[in-house]
Amino acid sequence: MNILITGATGFVGTHLIDLYIKDRKSKNLHCVTFGESRTLQQVIPKEQCYEIDLTQPEKVYELVEKVKPQEVIHLAAMAAVGESFLDPQKVLQNNILTSVNILEAVRRHARKATVLLIGSADEYGLVKPEEPISEDIPLRPTSPYAVSKVAVDYLGLQYVLAHKLRIVRLRPFNHIGEYQGVGFAVADFAKQIVEAELDKRNVIKVGNLSAVRDFTDVKDMVEAYRLALAKCVPGEVYNVGSGKGVRMQDLLNLMLKQATREIRVEVDPRKYRPVDVESVVADPTKFMRQTGWRPKVPLENTLTRVLNYWRKLLIMHKEMR
Amino acid sequence: MNILITGATGFVGTHLIDLYIKDRKSKNLHCVTFGESRTLQQVIPKEQCYEIDLTQPEKVYELVEKVKPQEVIHLAAMAAVGESFLDPQKVLQNNILTSVNILEAVRRHARKATVLLIGSADEYGLVKPEEPISEDIPLRPTSPYAVSKVAVDYLGLQYVLAHKLRIVRLRPFNHIGEYQGVGFAVADFAKQIVEAELDKRNVIKVGNLSAVRDFTDVKDMVEAYRLALAKCVPGEVYNVGSGKGVRMQDLLNLMLKQATREIRVEVDPRKYRPVDVESVVADPTKFMRQTGWRPKVPLENTLTRVLNYWRKLLIMHKEMR
Repeated sequence: MNILITGATGFVGTHLIDLYIKDRKSKNLHCVTFGESRTLQQVIPKEQCYEIDLTQPEKVYELVEKVKPQEVIHLAAMAAVGESFLDPQKVLQNNILTSVNILEAVRRHARKATVLLIGSADEYGLVKPEEPISEDIPLRPTSPYAVSKVAVDYLGLQYVLAHKLRIVRLRPFNHIGEYQGVGFAVADFAKQIVEAELDKRNVIKVGNLSAVRDFTDVKDMVEAYRLALAKCVPGEVYNVGSGKGVRMQDLLNLMLKQATREIRVEVDPRKYRPVDVESVVADPTKFMRQTGWRPKVPLENTLTRVLNYWRKLLIMHKEMR
Repeated sequence: MNILITGATGFVGTHLIDLYIKDRKSKNLHCVTFGESRTLQQVIPKEQCYEIDLTQPEKVYELVEKVKPQEVIHLAAMAAVGESFLDPQKVLQNNILTSVNILEAVRRHARKATVLLIGSADEYGLVKPEEPISEDIPLRPTSPYAVSKVAVDYLGLQYVLAHKLRIVRLRPFNHIGEYQGVGFAVADFAKQIVEAELDKRNVIKVGNLSAVRDFTDVKDMVEAYRLALAKCVPGEVYNVGSGKGVRMQDLLNLMLKQATREIRVEVDPRKYRPVDVESVVADPTKFMRQTGWRPKVPLENTLTRVLNYWRKLLIMHKEMR
């Protein structure tokens, strides 16, 4: 049983590989990394780590022909929504091209593999206020990143319709945890709070706090991905989220309560997106029914881990200076 | 009033420019061609013909900054559905990248321009049998070409939602006429019929004849495009088609009736697509109500013109040999 994972050293990839290792499956993993894979080679056999540019079709075809995976989890993507406004060409080309290369490689060399294709709650975008969001409401993407995920989503459907590949399409809602980079609200909050702790400052700057989002711990999310491969119906699309909305202001308050000093919050309109959606809450009924998945980690615990991750990271950086 | 047209020497572009010239608007036209523009320079001022690679963002930004168009009609696209299965990367990259370059250029340098963005009936794909097809049924694209048009369509919506650009999105159903290349059924039929006429052969080979499609004369289609710019609501998406279904077998019979000799038809399963949609008929109510557009040319007349076009073309080729 060979499992091919792209984006293996990314935010979600790191946690997914943790999960498989705990499950004693490191022998089965074949991991594609963007850039160097030295750290990954400490937990995955070196010859199963591939430093491959997924935008090059021939490289991807060769890889899939060699690995002959039974399962493919395509996590690699440019995911920063804010940045995608600055260079829309880049995010569109990268996310679409890497995905079509993977699907085309599977069509050519691993037709029976189950492929997990990762869309995004951002595909729904500026929905009419009819939350929670089920899979069949019209998509109204507001960022180039979101459009790239819409394209990947429909590309998956097209390979199902035309070539009968076994592709499961997911639309994960916000997920948070260690290793998430800045450019995402919770990571930005955590980094600024920890910087304030370390530098003994009292102010952090944030964007729109009235927005409501649906947060899942990344540990719960990777468990959902594993279940999706085992239990979802190829061709179908599923929301993955908690189904519960949290106002950004309330989430930030939970984090500030865990800070080691008093911190004041300044709202900076320059941190607003060109267009922002007031409320994005999943209706995850379809996925939960199909898989039995339920998120387990309470939000406070996730936020503690995120803050501690940034404390460790920033103290390390400080010591290295 | 500057009008920027991309894909100006293509199938639809040629007819659209004809229309504007008849309307004495050649002075207003700025035309982007793929490859050389010598023929176009006979009808459009030479300095308004641009041989530009639309996949290069900077070139497109410079062009739009210079022309400062009030209207943009983005026709340039790879349109051959069958071919798109052979090189999905190419059609996806080309159609999406050229479109984002145009939209980004308009956002930077011509924010008030009205942009006509051309999707396709192919976006609907394998719809459940609930024809005619209105704009709000779920998209189920079956070819890489169709996915590229879905992406362009949502990209247009995204630029409307995020940047308030004046973008009108159209989903034209099948259109036919002179200058359409092989790879499209009617052009393929016409070419084979005329070859049989010239070479005194009695057989032509065709694909799936049971399919039902909605045909519009390209002359009616470019009139629809002109009306769309004047009358449609930016941000909205409109089907453009006759609303009448014609079985391919019946269309072929109409053409064979006009042939100068008896021709027998052989169905060749190799000409079938990986997946084909039985019936694709537009519900064009929304567009017709908004613009007053009605198709005028009877199908028989269009087919006569198409056959005569191929007769002229193939006799010319024969004489040159």
